[in-house]
Amino acid sequence: MIRIGIAGYGNIGRGVESAVTNAPDMELVAVFTRRDPASVCTVTGAPVMAYDQIGSMKDELDVVVICGGSATDLPWMTPELAAQFNVIDSFDNHANIPEHFANVDAAAKAAGKVGIISCGWDPGYFSLARVFADAALPDGDNYTFWGRGVSQGHSDAIRRIEGVADARQYTVPIPAAVDAVRAGEHPVFTARDMHLRECYVVAEEGADKAAIEEAIKTMPNYFEPYDTTVEFISQEELNEKHSGLPHGGSVLRSGTTGFNAEFNNTVEFTLDLDSNPFFTGSILAAAARAAFRMNSEGQCGAKTLLDVPPVYLSHQSREELIAHLL
Amino acid sequence: MIRIGIAGYGNIGRGVESAVTNAPDMELVAVFTRRDPASVCTVTGAPVMAYDQIGSMKDELDVVVICGGSATDLPWMTPELAAQFNVIDSFDNHANIPEHFANVDAAAKAAGKVGIISCGWDPGYFSLARVFADAALPDGDNYTFWGRGVSQGHSDAIRRIEGVADARQYTVPIPAAVDAVRAGEHPVFTARDMHLRECYVVAEEGADKAAIEEAIKTMPNYFEPYDTTVEFISQEELNEKHSGLPHGGSVLRSGTTGFNAEFNNTVEFTLDLDSNPFFTGSILAAAARAAFRMNSEGQCGAKTLLDVPPVYLSHQSREELIAHLL
Repeated sequence: MIRIGIAGYGNIGRGVESAVTNAPDMELVAVFTRRDPASVCTVTGAPVMAYDQIGSMKDELDVVVICGGSATDLPWMTPELAAQFNVIDSFDNHANIPEHFANVDAAAKAAGKVGIISCGWDPGYFSLARVFADAALPDGDNYTFWGRGVSQGHSDAIRRIEGVADARQYTVPIPAAVDAVRAGEHPVFTARDMHLRECYVVAEEGADKAAIEEAIKTMPNYFEPYDTTVEFISQEELNEKHSGLPHGGSVLRSGTTGFNAEFNNTVEFTLDLDSNPFFTGSILAAAARAAFRMNSEGQCGAKTLLDVPPVYLSHQSREELIAHLL
Repeated sequence: MIRIGIAGYGNIGRGVESAVTNAPDMELVAVFTRRDPASVCTVTGAPVMAYDQIGSMKDELDVVVICGGSATDLPWMTPELAAQFNVIDSFDNHANIPEHFANVDAAAKAAGKVGIISCGWDPGYFSLARVFADAALPDGDNYTFWGRGVSQGHSDAIRRIEGVADARQYTVPIPAAVDAVRAGEHPVFTARDMHLRECYVVAEEGADKAAIEEAIKTMPNYFEPYDTTVEFISQEELNEKHSGLPHGGSVLRSGTTGFNAEFNNTVEFTLDLDSNPFFTGSILAAAARAAFRMNSEGQCGAKTLLDVPPVYLSHQSREELIAHLL
């Protein structure tokens, strides 16, 4: 059994807890939190320990799955823990990945450990789809559509507006854009061409709804570059209809083969997820298995899913995969 | 530059020739044929040599891409060539893959070479999609739909019927079946539920068309288990409308996450290809790059795409992939 620790216990931490508990070859040893451990109760009853105590578990854990935020937690947590453990994270700040990779690489190499970063579905499985499609169709264009799904970052941005009690934002791909890519048209898109932003907002009593709507639609980066719809609803309706965290999307590559680029081809990878954090947790658990195997055969340093032989992600043996899934 | 040889020069051989010629990091040294080399003319003007001469090119080739048939060529060619070269093949006889793998493994290990077998899109990219989906959703069901596309094996089977001058067979997925999987229904399908077989047949003059249609529709394994349509057309119409080799299909996995399997998820990988052999050739060329890199770092033996770190397939460097596609 591969012995797993989880550092950080929010939605993704619970997703990892679920995936590890369901896996035949892994056991969850403990959850580590920076909150008061007595205040945290795990779904499966797995022990909760203080994050500061994790060093004392060095001999009890094969891999630590780090479930913190990319903005302020992972940049220091992943290198810190990679100095003691094989680690996995879901760092998703694309622009800062090279820097994060270098920091984790230095710590993991010094410790002889493996650290696989950015293991979610984007970055993660969508990255794999982009690389496989690019390798087969080097002459082509990549397109990534996200949604229909809840963007927690955009929902948070709305909640910070004065007069907003609660909010949920869906990122929605525009069907005509997806169809144009599938048809091999190689369109050049603006952000507005590819996605809509659909907002459900609960206003505080007496709040100026017109001002809230204006504040949302003109918010730079988050909403201004998109066509955005705002609908005010009650807290009850928000809770009833918008409490889930579904997500998904598609990676498409449209490219040519042939001596004169005479053949068109489309490669498409699509996810449709009832729960974004639980699917992310599943990938993190599979990556933990891979990290354990790669470290067991002597590898160390920072890795991404692009470095992982796919067999290592599966609980099935190489022979089973060759016989049944190849 | 990675120096490539192609053994066998049919449709897939030309696909590899095209992909290698378009790649920035590979050069095509020679094509090897069992026909009279003087009778074979390559599209790019690459030299043609007798297959028997390939041993004399041991120091001139980094990887040999073997483009023979799975039924009678690859079972002996791939082990024979793996004893001298890093090799790639597209062996697609699923039931015999474990035996073929073992034969190539023994030869390649003895020679210190890498042999990556079954590198097409199924087996190949579809296998990767199945393994990634299975690793993320261990609790679920896989479905593979092929088409709409030309099955050369089924077209050949029709051409062997008395009175048939020419034929083309399309494998067609049944939309309702695909939709049921996407909807998370976990259906149990018969072969007939998933695919139709659409046949375009040119009859010889005076042939008994009713007998031909009956012979097709009752042919065991090939057509009997399916709903099959037969349309008789002229050779001119066949040449005009059905001369291409398009193909494609979808791998779907529908599975659950959550402590009580409460979340449904669908993972889908779809290919839409104007030319089956040229896309296959592209994957074979990418696999040749990977074989060269894996052997350069000291690996040997038989491999499949499931063993290949995805970065090795790309002409881009690991740093470029991390910065741009991760």
